[in-house]
Amino acid sequence: MLDKDPPESVSEATTHRLSLLLRSLRILDGEGVGTVSSQQLAERFGLNAAQIRKDLAQFGEFGIRGVGYRVPDLKEKLKWVLGLDRPRTVVVLGAGHLGQALADSKNFNSEGFKVVALFDNDRRKIGGRSRTDLPIRDIAELPVVARAESVEIGVLAIPAEAVPSAAVVLRNAGVRAILNFAPITLAPVPGLEVKNVDLTLFLENLSFRLAATGDRPRPKRG
Amino acid sequence: MLDKDPPESVSEATTHRLSLLLRSLRILDGEGVGTVSSQQLAERFGLNAAQIRKDLAQFGEFGIRGVGYRVPDLKEKLKWVLGLDRPRTVVVLGAGHLGQALADSKNFNSEGFKVVALFDNDRRKIGGRSRTDLPIRDIAELPVVARAESVEIGVLAIPAEAVPSAAVVLRNAGVRAILNFAPITLAPVPGLEVKNVDLTLFLENLSFRLAATGDRPRPKRG
Repeated sequence: MLDKDPPESVSEATTHRLSLLLRSLRILDGEGVGTVSSQQLAERFGLNAAQIRKDLAQFGEFGIRGVGYRVPDLKEKLKWVLGLDRPRTVVVLGAGHLGQALADSKNFNSEGFKVVALFDNDRRKIGGRSRTDLPIRDIAELPVVARAESVEIGVLAIPAEAVPSAAVVLRNAGVRAILNFAPITLAPVPGLEVKNVDLTLFLENLSFRLAATGDRPRPKRG
Repeated sequence: MLDKDPPESVSEATTHRLSLLLRSLRILDGEGVGTVSSQQLAERFGLNAAQIRKDLAQFGEFGIRGVGYRVPDLKEKLKWVLGLDRPRTVVVLGAGHLGQALADSKNFNSEGFKVVALFDNDRRKIGGRSRTDLPIRDIAELPVVARAESVEIGVLAIPAEAVPSAAVVLRNAGVRAILNFAPITLAPVPGLEVKNVDLTLFLENLSFRLAATGDRPRPKRG
């Protein structure tokens, strides 16, 4: 049924919704539910039925008219679409508080991902272990580890000024994607998929909502 | 010129773009640039000119035909729209690696936000200080601190099972918004704006992009 090549350009909002849909399907599959309609998905998981149909339509014909979606099939197809049909190995650069939190988090060691090493350049940290017993290794070993473990994603939890050179080291080691938590926007690097995470945006979204729900009088018109 | 009340429902994607636009305007204002067109903003900062005009149109008439936007004015108006025209105080619950990383981060102590305390219930941590010298206080003191400091936003970096009760404690202490990093979706709570952050979604977005840019053969049609 994957009768379309995925479109060249799919928005991040779409992949975000597909991720949430996949989680819903995993829950249903765990419960042994065989088929589900977009309406049922919407009601149970707080999704939008029309949006589900629209998002999926970009990738082919998934549903069966009058029946809905077959849960195990749609789950597998979504895993394929999201590239989660095989595990992806991850390394974290920076063994400070954020790097250790990310390396040890269930989020980053969930179905589909596995953190295999944490790197730092601080002699006092190298040789240590994270709370989940992940070794903290010398950043100089990154190329060897990356090739040995077929690392695909590098997570940056390092100072902003170290980001550009770290990107080059990762790319040269065969790593293909970077998730950057450092407070600097890493510009596109040929051969690397880059995602910059700016946690301030979440606070600003909340600030907007606080303002919109009336923590101040409306302004004068004019 | 804020001649419209902000619409009831503005998507998170929109507030995200407005945040990025505000950053661009801060840079231009710092450089002393007086006016800028949507086209110039788009070219310099990698934005979309039509989208800028569309986003701003939800909040009123900001531009002057043939001139563009007055940078200082638009900056101030966007700060107002985003509720960043006055500082908002933040507390972080959970003094583990993630909580300490967030409490100390420049992101969470940037223009518009200030973390005033870090809370935990672990006697070994209480009384200590974060790297930026923020006191780690007993969670039992939260109501007193929240009222004394007019805390508006609580950031959760605690175990999943502690989230529902923490939300109640925060709401009862007069806190109005929660940014939840725990690996559980906090359902809407009356009187609280809630934003759940799921860091796995960023990894899944990268996984999608890796798959889409060809780390595997296209499937058979069918």
